[in-house]
Amino acid sequence: MGQDSFRLRLNTLVLIVAIILVSHSAQPLALKHAPRFVGKFALASTAPSQSQSLQLNYETRYFQQRLDHFSFLDLPTFPQRYLISTEHWVGPKRVGPIFFYCGNEGDIVWFAQNTGFVWEIAPQFGAMVVFPEHRYYGESMPYGSKEEAYKNATTLSYLTAEQALADFSVLLTDLKQNFSAKDCPVVLFGGSYGGMLAAWMRLKYPHIAIGALASSAPILQFENIVPPETFYDIVSNDFRRESSSCFNYIKQSWDEITSTGQTKDGLERLTKTFHICQQLKSTDDLYGWLESAYSYLAMVDYPYPSAFLMPLPGHSIKEVCKRIDRGPAGTSVLERIYEGVNVYYNYTGEAKCFELDDDPHGMSGWNWQACTEMVMPMSSNKESSMFPPYEYNYSSFQEECFMEFGVKPRPKWITTEFGGKNIHATLKKFGSNIIFSNGLLDPWSGGSVLQNISESVVSLVTEEGAHHIDLRASTQNDPDWLVKQRKTEIKLIEDWISNYYQKNKAIFDI
Amino acid sequence: MGQDSFRLRLNTLVLIVAIILVSHSAQPLALKHAPRFVGKFALASTAPSQSQSLQLNYETRYFQQRLDHFSFLDLPTFPQRYLISTEHWVGPKRVGPIFFYCGNEGDIVWFAQNTGFVWEIAPQFGAMVVFPEHRYYGESMPYGSKEEAYKNATTLSYLTAEQALADFSVLLTDLKQNFSAKDCPVVLFGGSYGGMLAAWMRLKYPHIAIGALASSAPILQFENIVPPETFYDIVSNDFRRESSSCFNYIKQSWDEITSTGQTKDGLERLTKTFHICQQLKSTDDLYGWLESAYSYLAMVDYPYPSAFLMPLPGHSIKEVCKRIDRGPAGTSVLERIYEGVNVYYNYTGEAKCFELDDDPHGMSGWNWQACTEMVMPMSSNKESSMFPPYEYNYSSFQEECFMEFGVKPRPKWITTEFGGKNIHATLKKFGSNIIFSNGLLDPWSGGSVLQNISESVVSLVTEEGAHHIDLRASTQNDPDWLVKQRKTEIKLIEDWISNYYQKNKAIFDI
Repeated sequence: MGQDSFRLRLNTLVLIVAIILVSHSAQPLALKHAPRFVGKFALASTAPSQSQSLQLNYETRYFQQRLDHFSFLDLPTFPQRYLISTEHWVGPKRVGPIFFYCGNEGDIVWFAQNTGFVWEIAPQFGAMVVFPEHRYYGESMPYGSKEEAYKNATTLSYLTAEQALADFSVLLTDLKQNFSAKDCPVVLFGGSYGGMLAAWMRLKYPHIAIGALASSAPILQFENIVPPETFYDIVSNDFRRESSSCFNYIKQSWDEITSTGQTKDGLERLTKTFHICQQLKSTDDLYGWLESAYSYLAMVDYPYPSAFLMPLPGHSIKEVCKRIDRGPAGTSVLERIYEGVNVYYNYTGEAKCFELDDDPHGMSGWNWQACTEMVMPMSSNKESSMFPPYEYNYSSFQEECFMEFGVKPRPKWITTEFGGKNIHATLKKFGSNIIFSNGLLDPWSGGSVLQNISESVVSLVTEEGAHHIDLRASTQNDPDWLVKQRKTEIKLIEDWISNYYQKNKAIFDI
Repeated sequence: MGQDSFRLRLNTLVLIVAIILVSHSAQPLALKHAPRFVGKFALASTAPSQSQSLQLNYETRYFQQRLDHFSFLDLPTFPQRYLISTEHWVGPKRVGPIFFYCGNEGDIVWFAQNTGFVWEIAPQFGAMVVFPEHRYYGESMPYGSKEEAYKNATTLSYLTAEQALADFSVLLTDLKQNFSAKDCPVVLFGGSYGGMLAAWMRLKYPHIAIGALASSAPILQFENIVPPETFYDIVSNDFRRESSSCFNYIKQSWDEITSTGQTKDGLERLTKTFHICQQLKSTDDLYGWLESAYSYLAMVDYPYPSAFLMPLPGHSIKEVCKRIDRGPAGTSVLERIYEGVNVYYNYTGEAKCFELDDDPHGMSGWNWQACTEMVMPMSSNKESSMFPPYEYNYSSFQEECFMEFGVKPRPKWITTEFGGKNIHATLKKFGSNIIFSNGLLDPWSGGSVLQNISESVVSLVTEEGAHHIDLRASTQNDPDWLVKQRKTEIKLIEDWISNYYQKNKAIFDI
């Protein structure tokens, strides 16, 4: 790997870290903003340098969308990018299904690449495949460019989930018309935030899609529906289950960092210990860098080597903990920690030092969404978490958001609009044909639906799964439980479609 | 009745007529814009001078609403008025129900007055009663005043059904919290456009309300879901079933008006024949005046004397036709017509002449809604309709809307957002606890749901019913079918509530 691709990867890395470090204050940072979904780090990496990059056969098209579906303001439209493949579609006469991935907070090409499952199963279903991009991400920019779209709170104000769902619905209605496919059943897919969109779309637009596979979709991570400690407790448990000493070293490390930082030359020593390229300005930056490594490790703790965010070995937390634990007696806690996070930030061993630059504009799409609708309270429990203790404080969160974007969050809006409290009763009565799939290693699983709700709203839980692993392309290293999970998903989708055909036989006479 | 109340009534009348006549062109007018719901004529008449005016016991309150729920634009909030009565509510401990009327296109006090059913049944249910006003109507004006709110397409742009539903959802969420009533079941009510809102709200916000009584709610009057002739065919049939000669006289009258209008002094003669106060400028104005009388007569063809829009005898179409038919041989068609419409415009006999002034600003809330989302195609069939033949022409409609408001309609949006095509399948699978009640005399019934969909999505159809008669206060003259219909509605609502209690018994321990 030459110098160029090394830089490229490092840039991606910088971006990943940067977004965590958007704001500066005396508090541990990553805990003030909720952790980010994996997806958002795709902003810059449309074509990750993965050897297993999928060869996908699609066309790229653009659809002119209204900027505000819910008012009649005379605003400029914007081009929504979507990837479409009709290669395996059996067509409207045979009422072939449409597989529709609800694009999330990043470049849609990257999601298409990392959602091999949909592409792999499309041929056996004779399905059209559509990957629409989420507004304000990738190339789907209002106002002509990202710079303009992200200029201020006014230009950003239409970056909401409801607008995105309306985009999808309008696009689908148009596609169905253009392909004479009005009777063709639509199946929604989505992972993470995209999974939330898929589930919500199935609930809000049941007339448009017949079912949804919502993978790792934390639709309950709002208000007080799940305890705010849930996320960091799961991350912590992922480490503890590998090794309690590893858990303890990490738990100890924060105080060590703080006390080292307070000594003369302390920041310099920390900079050196952790191989940070530029001299640390505060320990907060280091906190954020480490916290995000642990959180992302928990999300992508896949059972085989992968390169979703970073090149990683299989069972990467096991590997991290092995390195943290293995130093001979006398190895300092911080040296151990450095060895461990190296697995995440530098598994290939090519990085000489790490950049912690933050986002120069302090703006990113997901940060905006987290500061407006996607208000997910997160705390870190003193006992059960290995992270620095932190109690969620809405007032300071609100202040931060106002400083960053000049916007006031609406913490109750998502549950008002989409529900969430007493979700089981609602889903039982109104939902159907939804799969909530979750791996329990994934810290987002705690905010998702982990119980079967009814015959057709089902929860697929895998003990050893991580963040939407089921949506990834199959590999030769897939464990049995994953193979089985995907088979179940295929079977359920087949059932939705055949039930749909059965019920509508009279209409379209196939 | 003194001169003052005579003027008052005439003013109301003028308003009713005015809105029909907003635009001027060579075409028959009322047919170019879709007929209006009854509700909109309530704009000015908060306290109709009805002897049977209900004595309601409520408080008037105001709730600050976001102007745009679906963006984060920094817009001024506005006060949404709502009427609330806790007089009969059994309170949160006994999980007392909340009856919530989805306010439609007019002053909410007027709707409360004309929705006696909800007030009458609240005591037996121990229910709280809430009547929220629809944004941009009555006192619920954005931007401080009607003048400002209706200034232009930009200020009007948030007058949409989705925003109104979000208002209701946010208000209900807040009320539930303030009354510690989060478990209290909400039942939605609505008539006409309000009925559409009730049905849509039940579909879109199932987590907020447990059921909806949607009376005379034409949720299918969009695109090509029902034939465009439906509305005027029903009006015509209402007249034909009373008397085929009456139907024929009306059908003939249009040509007579046109040919008279083309003669010298023709407009003067027409002005005189129809007792119009100011000299007619074109026959179009007369067309509109007559067309709206027939349409409204069909809507309010109640079996007993009423004064919903105008003081009218029971079975008013029968009375109209009697007068049209009764003149001796040789009575001219136009004289007959005048005698007939007098029943509508002047049943009390106090009007000396009729004002046809139009709305000086050419603006009204429902016109805006009809020109944006509520695009309801309407034609008049040459054979089956007694109205002048008219074929719906979307292009000219679009042009008219652009001229009037500077806005482009979105004719497919309502069906994209709320569904409508293949509604039976959608309702069967996703809907529950919805009553669609319709009287077949009501011309809006043709665009509603007239079949039972499932055990809990039911259609109550009455042969002799008109526009949401079931929602009106009971009277001693109620026919048996109406008494029975209301009993069925009460029984269904009781079932919803007791099922809800049954299912949630474990939670709130009542």
